[in-house]
Amino acid sequence: MRDHSHFRYEEVATFITGLVDSGTLPPGSRAPSLRDISRQRQISVSTALQAYRLLEDRGVLEARPQSGHYVAKRAAIRLEAPAISKPPSKATPVAVSAMLLKLQQYSTDPRLVPLGWAFPSAELLAAGRLDRFLARAARTKGVGHNTYTVPKGDLRLRQEIARRALRWGQALSPEDIVITCGCTEAVTLALNIVAQPGDTIAIESPTYFGLLRSLEVLGLKVIELPTDARSGIDLSALKRVLERGSVKACLFSSSFNNPLGCTMSNAKKLKVLTLLARYRVPLIEDDIFGDIYFGPQRPTPFIALDRGGNTIYCSSFSKTIAPGYRIGWMAMKTEMQKQRALERKLAFTLSGPPLLQAAFADFLSSGGYDNHLRRIRRVFEDTVDRMIRAIDRSFPTGTKVTRPAGSFVLWLELPKSMRTRVLFDQALEHGICFVPGDVFSANGRFGHCLRLSCGHGWDARIEKGVLKLGELACAAAAR
Amino acid sequence: MRDHSHFRYEEVATFITGLVDSGTLPPGSRAPSLRDISRQRQISVSTALQAYRLLEDRGVLEARPQSGHYVAKRAAIRLEAPAISKPPSKATPVAVSAMLLKLQQYSTDPRLVPLGWAFPSAELLAAGRLDRFLARAARTKGVGHNTYTVPKGDLRLRQEIARRALRWGQALSPEDIVITCGCTEAVTLALNIVAQPGDTIAIESPTYFGLLRSLEVLGLKVIELPTDARSGIDLSALKRVLERGSVKACLFSSSFNNPLGCTMSNAKKLKVLTLLARYRVPLIEDDIFGDIYFGPQRPTPFIALDRGGNTIYCSSFSKTIAPGYRIGWMAMKTEMQKQRALERKLAFTLSGPPLLQAAFADFLSSGGYDNHLRRIRRVFEDTVDRMIRAIDRSFPTGTKVTRPAGSFVLWLELPKSMRTRVLFDQALEHGICFVPGDVFSANGRFGHCLRLSCGHGWDARIEKGVLKLGELACAAAAR
Repeated sequence: MRDHSHFRYEEVATFITGLVDSGTLPPGSRAPSLRDISRQRQISVSTALQAYRLLEDRGVLEARPQSGHYVAKRAAIRLEAPAISKPPSKATPVAVSAMLLKLQQYSTDPRLVPLGWAFPSAELLAAGRLDRFLARAARTKGVGHNTYTVPKGDLRLRQEIARRALRWGQALSPEDIVITCGCTEAVTLALNIVAQPGDTIAIESPTYFGLLRSLEVLGLKVIELPTDARSGIDLSALKRVLERGSVKACLFSSSFNNPLGCTMSNAKKLKVLTLLARYRVPLIEDDIFGDIYFGPQRPTPFIALDRGGNTIYCSSFSKTIAPGYRIGWMAMKTEMQKQRALERKLAFTLSGPPLLQAAFADFLSSGGYDNHLRRIRRVFEDTVDRMIRAIDRSFPTGTKVTRPAGSFVLWLELPKSMRTRVLFDQALEHGICFVPGDVFSANGRFGHCLRLSCGHGWDARIEKGVLKLGELACAAAAR
Repeated sequence: MRDHSHFRYEEVATFITGLVDSGTLPPGSRAPSLRDISRQRQISVSTALQAYRLLEDRGVLEARPQSGHYVAKRAAIRLEAPAISKPPSKATPVAVSAMLLKLQQYSTDPRLVPLGWAFPSAELLAAGRLDRFLARAARTKGVGHNTYTVPKGDLRLRQEIARRALRWGQALSPEDIVITCGCTEAVTLALNIVAQPGDTIAIESPTYFGLLRSLEVLGLKVIELPTDARSGIDLSALKRVLERGSVKACLFSSSFNNPLGCTMSNAKKLKVLTLLARYRVPLIEDDIFGDIYFGPQRPTPFIALDRGGNTIYCSSFSKTIAPGYRIGWMAMKTEMQKQRALERKLAFTLSGPPLLQAAFADFLSSGGYDNHLRRIRRVFEDTVDRMIRAIDRSFPTGTKVTRPAGSFVLWLELPKSMRTRVLFDQALEHGICFVPGDVFSANGRFGHCLRLSCGHGWDARIEKGVLKLGELACAAAAR
């Protein structure tokens, strides 16, 4: 299904940017005239003008009076994408929690330039309409909701989530869904369903540190699979570990792996599912960034492609509208998984706050969430583009950076000699926060990498922070 | 510290009820005159009259015109308390989740007489003032709180909780406290801190099934200790399992064990702590019912008596004001425990909803919570007394029932031949819900016991439900 959220002028801007980044339009060359581009792309001249203004604003094009648009000198992004990762193929216990706890103290410090934690900024989310639904629910529904929800969570909220899942072609029933405390609880419950302590889980490499933390406290080991920043995991590596019978389950991202930004194609997802079905290994998928896609179509989650019913889906509203509401969910198709999910939900947290769930259901059913998503997708896409360009301007030669087609994080690979843990301490002194790379691996890999968040949109403070960080990285690289 | 919440007339009512139940004042005998009792107890005649009216209302006394007050025929409770439990002293894996899930489907069914789940009724809690604080917070603090809290949870809420803990003489710092999703998450995190899967935890017998569920999903085994409905666990049994080195930690209630209602005296708690310190075994205490005491003084939690710092305290506001807010907390004193608690909190649920926490802090700091507690303590005490009398009137000879000095649950031991699981199905057909006894044990014990909740206050529907249940039990006992 085509998503009309992607406006024509943005498509044209993406098209021109592609020509620039590929070298087809070299720096200093003349861009197609507005008249030409409007004819070629079958758009109005005013839409073409809107696209060119966006590109001027992003520093890709420069307008010269009486002469037209030219490619800016620094317009092309010279940075390569990171190469495929090469983790060891052995099972490893996870021990990242203590380090993460130290880093976490900086996660909510408002004095720091927020390039670290993948939190969307509350100002940017502008969730006041949702808050008004909560205020109304608190005034009018308090007594009815001052109790425990049914174990699965508010029925209307589950209905709204199931309704939205129709868009990716998967008929989820409200009975397939369990509301959780964010995606974190969903993943932790899912892991507790499919694995026992001591078991091994196959994951992407690098992988989101929060998943590693969940794996750690549940006493699980991991095998990290080679993962490409564009196409995702290496299928033959997955096949090898499945053949060895060494993994109990897989935990993959559905879309825009955090931190790499990669999404497997549907064809590749089907191959993964076929492999997993052959070896009867269940899949847990983390789709938390799925709704933040920059292209015309939302990536399809595994569960929508899985005919075998052995996928547990996890997501939340924390990245798109309401990190403060802590509403996530998991979905699964087999009765055994559903029963186990409920048993664990009851044991871990019993129930979520019914008023928040009711208010969220009110908000979703009132409409407007899709408009909200369209708006923030544009903001994140724009910020990602600008941040890549700022990195290109300021980081040392040899730096590689991802070019995600969704989400709002970037993964940087600095020259091998760099230690981003050292850079982290230097950056803190300059009031800048990012996440060093080694917490994205159970094997202590990625010590020369780092993750930057684009969750706060683009402004002078963010830009200054990125440029300063690049300067610090250059100084460190020169030593 | 003396708590002034217990009014003089209630003390007098309790005094007279004690004389009746002990047989000092037999049925049909004349109660002390108002003048006598006011002189003896040093109260005004009007206070004495208030006490006697309460006793009339409860069916303990009858007023005869021109003649004074007499003990009602059915006033004395003939029911004995259950004898001390005698569980096997071996470690047992726990497997109650699947059965609980079946029972749980009835937990929120409004068509059933709610004698089952220990939920306080929302009408009785009347938490409208709290909801108004939430509505205000949602209107005025939405943007600032649409993010993740610091890992420990809202600072002001932790300050309010620490301030309240001063009353039991324990100087808890806000830094000792981690906000959780109810007491359930607190206990689950605490167990995950002190034990590995396969380890054994010593618990009371019977013990709350929710604790058993947490133990089960964490892969822990239990040793059930003999527990007396008045004085709590058998110290010598605890000593034996500690000597054998067979337990990794203990999980005891601080006050009003669910379902027995027993509370260990401070002297006994100190002995428990001394024993645990000698064997370096940590204690997790569940104090969820601590604020619902009927006597003049709140029971003292273990952590307030523990000089060794090896106690993890767990509680919540779910039984006293806001089951729907899902706000619980854990407190501990050592840095190692605090770090581990945070690591696990982050891994399990990351963060609670900041707006709910902020609203709750606003509510607590505005005062009025203590008045609320005084009111609901009286309601629960009254309901417990009336329900015991209704049980006395209707259940089969040989039934034993607890006489809790706090909380709002009763534990009934029926004649040994009874199967309360069978009675449960019969009761459902009559629209009555209770909890069968065998889910309070990992060893399948207590099949002839059941738990009744007094959380909905007393009314004709509840009374009819209890009497009908007694009738069904009599019919079953007669077979």
